[in-house]
Amino acid sequence: MAQTIQIGKLAVLLASLDEEEIQLFNKQFKEVRYCTGKAGSMNMQKVISSVETAAKRNGIISEEVYRETHALYHAILEALEGVTRGQIAIGDMMRTVGLKFSVVRGEPYDRKGEGEWIAVAFYGTIGAPVKGLEHETMGLGINHI
Amino acid sequence: MAQTIQIGKLAVLLASLDEEEIQLFNKQFKEVRYCTGKAGSMNMQKVISSVETAAKRNGIISEEVYRETHALYHAILEALEGVTRGQIAIGDMMRTVGLKFSVVRGEPYDRKGEGEWIAVAFYGTIGAPVKGLEHETMGLGINHI
Amino acid sequence: MAQTIQIGKLAVLLASLDEEEIQLFNKQFKEVRYCTGKAGSMNMQKVISSVETAAKRNGIISEEVYRETHALYHAILEALEGVTRGQIAIGDMMRTVGLKFSVVRGEPYDRKGEGEWIAVAFYGTIGAPVKGLEHETMGLGINHI
Amino acid sequence: MAQTIQIGKLAVLLASLDEEEIQLFNKQFKEVRYCTGKAGSMNMQKVISSVETAAKRNGIISEEVYRETHALYHAILEALEGVTRGQIAIGDMMRTVGLKFSVVRGEPYDRKGEGEWIAVAFYGTIGAPVKGLEHETMGLGINHI
Amino acid sequence: MAQTIQIGKLAVLLASLDEEEIQLFNKQFKEVRYCTGKAGSMNMQKVISSVETAAKRNGIISEEVYRETHALYHAILEALEGVTRGQIAIGDMMRTVGLKFSVVRGEPYDRKGEGEWIAVAFYGTIGAPVKGLEHETMGLGINHI
Amino acid sequence: MAQTIQIGKLAVLLASLDEEEIQLFNKQFKEVRYCTGKAGSMNMQKVISSVETAAKRNGIISEEVYRETHALYHAILEALEGVTRGQIAIGDMMRTVGLKFSVVRGEPYDRKGEGEWIAVAFYGTIGAPVKGLEHETMGLGINHI
Repeated sequence: MAQTIQIGKLAVLLASLDEEEIQLFNKQFKEVRYCTGKAGSMNMQKVISSVETAAKRNGIISEEVYRETHALYHAILEALEGVTRGQIAIGDMMRTVGLKFSVVRGEPYDRKGEGEWIAVAFYGTIGAPVKGLEHETMGLGINHI
Repeated sequence: MAQTIQIGKLAVLLASLDEEEIQLFNKQFKEVRYCTGKAGSMNMQKVISSVETAAKRNGIISEEVYRETHALYHAILEALEGVTRGQIAIGDMMRTVGLKFSVVRGEPYDRKGEGEWIAVAFYGTIGAPVKGLEHETMGLGINHI
Repeated sequence: MAQTIQIGKLAVLLASLDEEEIQLFNKQFKEVRYCTGKAGSMNMQKVISSVETAAKRNGIISEEVYRETHALYHAILEALEGVTRGQIAIGDMMRTVGLKFSVVRGEPYDRKGEGEWIAVAFYGTIGAPVKGLEHETMGLGINHI
Repeated sequence: MAQTIQIGKLAVLLASLDEEEIQLFNKQFKEVRYCTGKAGSMNMQKVISSVETAAKRNGIISEEVYRETHALYHAILEALEGVTRGQIAIGDMMRTVGLKFSVVRGEPYDRKGEGEWIAVAFYGTIGAPVKGLEHETMGLGINHI
Repeated sequence: MAQTIQIGKLAVLLASLDEEEIQLFNKQFKEVRYCTGKAGSMNMQKVISSVETAAKRNGIISEEVYRETHALYHAILEALEGVTRGQIAIGDMMRTVGLKFSVVRGEPYDRKGEGEWIAVAFYGTIGAPVKGLEHETMGLGINHI
Repeated sequence: MAQTIQIGKLAVLLASLDEEEIQLFNKQFKEVRYCTGKAGSMNMQKVISSVETAAKRNGIISEEVYRETHALYHAILEALEGVTRGQIAIGDMMRTVGLKFSVVRGEPYDRKGEGEWIAVAFYGTIGAPVKGLEHETMGLGINHI
């Protein structure tokens, strides 16, 4: 792979590993900015805005530049394609999610001019709105920013 | 999570970590059957059949029971939704993939009667059919088997 | 066809024929378990939960095993792809449905080990939320259970 | 239902019943024009053109008016949504179909001015390109013509 | 192009040009019936019903014939595919639209028997529900009527 | 609208107007870089690569920076959603396109930091692979670059 820093893999690890396991990869996180958070809901809007709010509060993207919100939004949607597998909908399809998410920003490429990219990952459960009737789900979205 | 064994997370780790990193999670793989493989192609058919062939050759699913092929096929398709994010197509949309995949089979739930489930994960790159013009991609599919 | 019992065809007949017509096919229903019901709504959640509730109340699937709910849920979604043809949405797209549905469970294959499968069919109307501004619609989903 | 003639239901019966069973519904076919045919392929183009060719050869639609081809084409695509459930693709997704199809043209509504409509139905199997590794599938599309 | 009157292009111009610019194309609008309107919302239902209401109030389609509502509805949905690019959803995906729309009805073809067709176009902005965090969007749908 | 320069509208005009009509809007093209081209095919790959090749040959994007190819690629795909309305496929669905396309690059926003964005528009016909059996189609995609 032509990538020096795998922001996607880092986002996936942040979303799916527990605290202790993440420590094992500590070195790899030195060259990126990132944040994590949780979103449990039947409401897709809430899931999307949880990620956007976390990314802005933690200074991963600038609140005042549409360009960055646009880049993040499409990365979120692409990650949600993996989570929902077919239709970006949860409550409307009578299912609910309990997700941990991560946002990672960095320069994955050595090539001059490639600049910064952003990765969004989700990991958690999706299923019926009944405790325990659920299975794992995951999604990753990547965009230039 | 009501799951004792996170077959999805294990599939994700198998697909995205390198040999050395996977060793760190060795204990967690004791209670599942799994295999891994690679698929690099502009042809979606080849990606799907690489996973099916690997799963059958390694005895993860039975070659002679349609039921198991059916369960695996839908897990593959769901994982490809995450990889392709919108349309399960690669060459037709002028993009190519270089993927590592994993298939994990086990009993994720304690509850009596839940039986075996299967997880398929992909991790790698997707991009233009030109070396280096690509970014990371990931997908996870889960099904009862 | 390698199938001895066409659970899909039986589901389609149950959903689309009237009482009298169904009698003509009585013999074919001896080897399956099934139930039928109605769902008229602009709310996709209600359509999905009508089918799930009917299947559980009539003992077609077990309420306590996620595995069976999972199998049924995906069969319902696949049937709804046929009903909605493009986007699994009704009210959000300003349309409403008046559907009869059926759930059929049986062993369609002679082959040893194929076990039980489930079929869900819908038949009825889809259209504008104005009486009469509607046309027929149908969908069928099949899954191993 | 405000429909006098259920062209969709008739199309479904023509596609899914065998010769003998169809006789039971003979009376209902008096007021419509229809044809049936078969299409077995991994190639979606061939499935679509089999239906178009049959409809034209049997005089169900006019070969020389684009309007009628357009109406039929969209009815076919909608029926294929039910058959493929998610992505209108077969060979690219490593699956094959063995389908019987029907095209029914008639005046379903009493209301003055509603004119003619067309229904396309498919019924058969979809599955792996291996004999017997397949399950039933069905689709229905309706359009004004 | 075999079309004498490009109803699609006319719809696009009506939706995207300002009053003054439209004057430049005045001659081309002589042979069609059309209307325009605005729809700003996070609610897809409202966008769809704004177009339907405008088309009925301005006599572009007949309120009493389902056939015409059906033709218009599918033209609207196709135009919304262009606006939403992937999932026909706005509020659920935490985005909002500010659109100008147009409906054009006419006879685009010289060929005898092709009759009337309808075009629906949208042009405006789509983006976050925050003033200014948005970019342009456009969609065109065409159907026989 | 908070945009000073409507790159999307300019792309739409370039794709849909004839030479003479475009002259009427000449002033508006002063602050953007753009190119146009044609793509007629049943092959989606060819359509995508026609646009990419034109954009690179005309210096609208840099051939050596993946970041720019990535931005353009997603703008093309979004525009193709409008052209294909449901499934980004042409030949596989037995239809062909005859399109004029445009790529416009500029700074649509006054706000500091928004930088450059890219718009891709298609206008032309889509239909059966028979001369004349076709209707108009259009698509617009926008991305930050």
